[in-house]
Amino acid sequence: MTYESRNRLQGVFTPNVVPLDDRGEINERELRRYVDWLIQRGVHGLYPNGSTGEFTRFTADERRRIIEIIADQTAGRVPILAGAAEANTRETIRACERYHQLGARAVAIVAPFYYKLTPAGVYAYFKEIADNSPIDVTLYNIPLFASPIDLPTVRRLADECPRVVAIKDSSGDLPHMMRMIAAVRPQRPDFSFLTGWDAALMPMLLIGCDGGTNATSGIVPEITRKLYDLTVSGQLDAARDLQYRLLLLFDAMLYSAEFPEGFRAALQLRGFAAGRGRQPKSPSQQIELDQLGRQLQCLLAAEGFTDEPVGGCPASIEIDPEQVARIVQRIVGELRERG
Amino acid sequence: MTYESRNRLQGVFTPNVVPLDDRGEINERELRRYVDWLIQRGVHGLYPNGSTGEFTRFTADERRRIIEIIADQTAGRVPILAGAAEANTRETIRACERYHQLGARAVAIVAPFYYKLTPAGVYAYFKEIADNSPIDVTLYNIPLFASPIDLPTVRRLADECPRVVAIKDSSGDLPHMMRMIAAVRPQRPDFSFLTGWDAALMPMLLIGCDGGTNATSGIVPEITRKLYDLTVSGQLDAARDLQYRLLLLFDAMLYSAEFPEGFRAALQLRGFAAGRGRQPKSPSQQIELDQLGRQLQCLLAAEGFTDEPVGGCPASIEIDPEQVARIVQRIVGELRERG
Amino acid sequence: MTYESRNRLQGVFTPNVVPLDDRGEINERELRRYVDWLIQRGVHGLYPNGSTGEFTRFTADERRRIIEIIADQTAGRVPILAGAAEANTRETIRACERYHQLGARAVAIVAPFYYKLTPAGVYAYFKEIADNSPIDVTLYNIPLFASPIDLPTVRRLADECPRVVAIKDSSGDLPHMMRMIAAVRPQRPDFSFLTGWDAALMPMLLIGCDGGTNATSGIVPEITRKLYDLTVSGQLDAARDLQYRLLLLFDAMLYSAEFPEGFRAALQLRGFAAGRGRQPKSPSQQIELDQLGRQLQCLLAAEGFTDEPVGGCPASIEIDPEQVARIVQRIVGELRERG
Amino acid sequence: MTYESRNRLQGVFTPNVVPLDDRGEINERELRRYVDWLIQRGVHGLYPNGSTGEFTRFTADERRRIIEIIADQTAGRVPILAGAAEANTRETIRACERYHQLGARAVAIVAPFYYKLTPAGVYAYFKEIADNSPIDVTLYNIPLFASPIDLPTVRRLADECPRVVAIKDSSGDLPHMMRMIAAVRPQRPDFSFLTGWDAALMPMLLIGCDGGTNATSGIVPEITRKLYDLTVSGQLDAARDLQYRLLLLFDAMLYSAEFPEGFRAALQLRGFAAGRGRQPKSPSQQIELDQLGRQLQCLLAAEGFTDEPVGGCPASIEIDPEQVARIVQRIVGELRERG
Repeated sequence: MTYESRNRLQGVFTPNVVPLDDRGEINERELRRYVDWLIQRGVHGLYPNGSTGEFTRFTADERRRIIEIIADQTAGRVPILAGAAEANTRETIRACERYHQLGARAVAIVAPFYYKLTPAGVYAYFKEIADNSPIDVTLYNIPLFASPIDLPTVRRLADECPRVVAIKDSSGDLPHMMRMIAAVRPQRPDFSFLTGWDAALMPMLLIGCDGGTNATSGIVPEITRKLYDLTVSGQLDAARDLQYRLLLLFDAMLYSAEFPEGFRAALQLRGFAAGRGRQPKSPSQQIELDQLGRQLQCLLAAEGFTDEPVGGCPASIEIDPEQVARIVQRIVGELRERG
Repeated sequence: MTYESRNRLQGVFTPNVVPLDDRGEINERELRRYVDWLIQRGVHGLYPNGSTGEFTRFTADERRRIIEIIADQTAGRVPILAGAAEANTRETIRACERYHQLGARAVAIVAPFYYKLTPAGVYAYFKEIADNSPIDVTLYNIPLFASPIDLPTVRRLADECPRVVAIKDSSGDLPHMMRMIAAVRPQRPDFSFLTGWDAALMPMLLIGCDGGTNATSGIVPEITRKLYDLTVSGQLDAARDLQYRLLLLFDAMLYSAEFPEGFRAALQLRGFAAGRGRQPKSPSQQIELDQLGRQLQCLLAAEGFTDEPVGGCPASIEIDPEQVARIVQRIVGELRERG
Repeated sequence: MTYESRNRLQGVFTPNVVPLDDRGEINERELRRYVDWLIQRGVHGLYPNGSTGEFTRFTADERRRIIEIIADQTAGRVPILAGAAEANTRETIRACERYHQLGARAVAIVAPFYYKLTPAGVYAYFKEIADNSPIDVTLYNIPLFASPIDLPTVRRLADECPRVVAIKDSSGDLPHMMRMIAAVRPQRPDFSFLTGWDAALMPMLLIGCDGGTNATSGIVPEITRKLYDLTVSGQLDAARDLQYRLLLLFDAMLYSAEFPEGFRAALQLRGFAAGRGRQPKSPSQQIELDQLGRQLQCLLAAEGFTDEPVGGCPASIEIDPEQVARIVQRIVGELRERG
Repeated sequence: MTYESRNRLQGVFTPNVVPLDDRGEINERELRRYVDWLIQRGVHGLYPNGSTGEFTRFTADERRRIIEIIADQTAGRVPILAGAAEANTRETIRACERYHQLGARAVAIVAPFYYKLTPAGVYAYFKEIADNSPIDVTLYNIPLFASPIDLPTVRRLADECPRVVAIKDSSGDLPHMMRMIAAVRPQRPDFSFLTGWDAALMPMLLIGCDGGTNATSGIVPEITRKLYDLTVSGQLDAARDLQYRLLLLFDAMLYSAEFPEGFRAALQLRGFAAGRGRQPKSPSQQIELDQLGRQLQCLLAAEGFTDEPVGGCPASIEIDPEQVARIVQRIVGELRERG
């Protein structure tokens, strides 16, 4: 391993949920307790103000306050990757300056969102930030939510901007990750590749990723860290087994409720006062979330992290979609007649 | 109106469903009766082997047989636009030759499907066909199902190929239709623009379309034809009212079952032995189709085309999605407990 | 016309670009001059902090400042529809309160973006805002950029929330607009339907829309206003001609540069110091923008709004894509050999 | 390993290109020679009439003829997975019967295409075929081209249909593959999971896939087979290296020309008279294909399979997109002036 590759961002970074109090404000005490708990359970770093951290739902002041709290509580024990996207490049560069002063290891900046930019626009955006940032920059590619950062753009930014030191890719596209590694690593051995897609952490590490920013590590840091350790040490049978179990948890938290509410619900089950999220929920969504809580508790209980819910956990069962369809039709028919 | 524009394909062409008998074979007697019925009710032309005609679910022999029957029964009363897409350009050109011999006014050829071609590939495909076809060719753009035919490709084919005389566009994108008209009509006043999107027939005609290939005209030819007549004669208040009513029928037939099963079900209600479609249906789909039949009967009864179903038609009612969600949750819970 | 429908939001509202000075700050003097110019040219209302106004690229303080300036300068001459989306519902409700105090006619609130919400989530979001806003609320549906507001959600919000008085729909989907009108107008004759898709303004008005929030009206208010007047007064031949001409301008401004840079460039040509946008541009983008400027000047000159550029305007010509492809291949080959 | 899992479809199946002669007909002699060559180079099985085999561009008679030739030439040396999708379920079941008589190991059937079916429709389609097929059935999921086969549908078909013994998934979505394995393998240890996405063959095998139907194995069977062997024997460093090299070849053949023309061009370079494909090509496409041929020859030469092209192979070089953009702008400008 060369000097450069030793210095790469590596391991599992936790994109943390922000606990909220009864009034919807940042629950600083719980956030500090959460930071300690994560570090004690072995996450390699913290990644506040990511998508799991709902950075868009906080004000600019609150985003800064979150980094201040986490930097203070971490006190250098693990590196911090600070989400720094603001309304425009000037505000973003200011955030980079602040987080540099606070001792963050690097910032992570999502590609522009709302407007869908072309590759040329994405390039220009990151180039201006990288040329003016006093702190290392991680590109954050999440094409589901923001303008995609395509391969030529990553290569170009890596070639032209020494400040750009990593990409966090949440596309989950494994060959795409390989293409980026093949295109960038020869010229930039210090450049790091992190996956944001927990469902593929093991195979991503096996084809050359340096680690991940994985939302599951905020809920079951024990498992995500162990999966990382087993994989990089070549214990593939055990790693594969763990990856399949992590997939169950990941899917439950990701797909059963409006993201990232499933992670917030799970955090509560791990013993933290996570609070209600800021995005309002309809009555039907609240019901779904309660159901998810029960399902999550069963999954966490199966891993030994909590007790089973009252009434116990059913064996996994199949729901016959045809049967459901027939019942729903009957209901709709009844509603129609009453209508 | 110039000589060229007088010769344009104009009016409402019916993309007919193919009635099937108990063994799933083409029901020739019913197909012939259907052709007469459509012509008597005023459709301007027929369009067999379109998407509504499920051309992909027939063999090459059957597709030819369908055109033969319809050409024979029509006997020149209205022009025929014959769907002629086959496995490759050679087979397609052969179909063009046959349909030319049978007296079709033109063929309609969908862009290549399954493989998603680039504009250059779509161009090359139509160019080869147009250069070798003895009969006029209508481009058929249906981006939901097949490779899109983009604007530069339409313009280029119109410029280079006198045989290409029309486009049938089922995208439903009104400004896109305007862009095509603006790009092609100055050089090709004989080129015709037809919309396949019944939901926008009136506004499409108002911005310059020549007509449509409209699946609703196979079910309620009285309405679609009247909508055309009212619009082109400038009776906009009456036309608008009819367009809103046609939209209800169109949506019910298009979205309540796997396309084109809704149109087949409606044809049955108009008094034809439409038969079961060739695409198998699951039990839940069969239930949905029965429900759709009832809904369609009510819509057709409201227009005076059939009787109300036994039990009558409910006033339009709203289904509260939250209420349905709660009931479904309860059912799924019950299934889980039984499971 | 009933009392309710008389009170509907109606006509052409301008989503204004925000002029910026050399340091990238809001150019208040030019913004005030622009407001006067728009009102003098007949726009029915103003719509600051929309997508054309790049609301996401300003800070919360700047967004409020923009409304303050415009409200002050407008001084009641035309109604203001104020974009009020902030980081979360609490901040958004505060913005509603401020803009109510400033005398805005209503606010417009885009559906949540970045995160892609389900219909239930979109409903819950608007419900909470509508239940707490002192000012009328316009839903803003722009599925290209934000979570879509689907038909059942619009109907439900219209049924449950008297504060929700309009929808601005930028999808450009004409049958979708008809479905919304059919679903909502019977119960809510006071509810207004506005289209944000200038390319279809005439047909949208013809099927029942009340008006539009149209970015072209910020550049050629004379044309957009005239198109509105011709259409609602039934002068369809003249309206159709104007709609085709507006389409050319709209497409040039929308598709030739990163949105909304084309509108900013065009504003400069109308005599305002629009300034450079806040989104950085790559050298290739700057070249494209310069080319667009020339093209726009020719289009505006053809309408009599400005002089032709030095060197004159070429007759519209066709670029043969095959010819361009061959030349590009040659260039890439040459670059390869040099490489 | 249990009895059932021993019987699973396993290894690398080749979806072969069909060589064509000067008249565009099946080149039987070359096809037979190709079959021998593939078997000698170690592919585990053959997969005619797949997407690489352009099954949609042949007539029904030709598709049957292709299987007959390959079955005859293979003479039982390796198993055959025969693509059997026809116009409708009745024709497809007939094809199943024929291929069963010809000794195929199983058929592979793509989900319905052109029409986009719901999961219920996809289920009903495969259920009817599986209930009537005398030969084992492999589901073929390729959501880019055909209706997707979603997870509940796969599980349900695996539960209800003993004849359904495998899925070939070309989505390239690794967690999706894991979800299918987790859902099906416990009940069906005999069910096989094959990936059609060569770019991820190694990681797919590592998470539990049984093999693949990989188009690269038709061009570089030596590499694809070796990658399979290295991976299943746990030689991961060598496997990773090979996977990266295969990715280069795969991307070049897949993305540089209309699929599957790149594979046809590469087959020619391996010494077979592949012939011109049936899909016509525009002049610009022919130029691109010639360029691709040169690039492929360099890649194949680097692997020792052929000589370098005349003039040699350049070191890999970067094309600066900004530079290309400037040149293209210049060209377009020149064309405009000439126009």
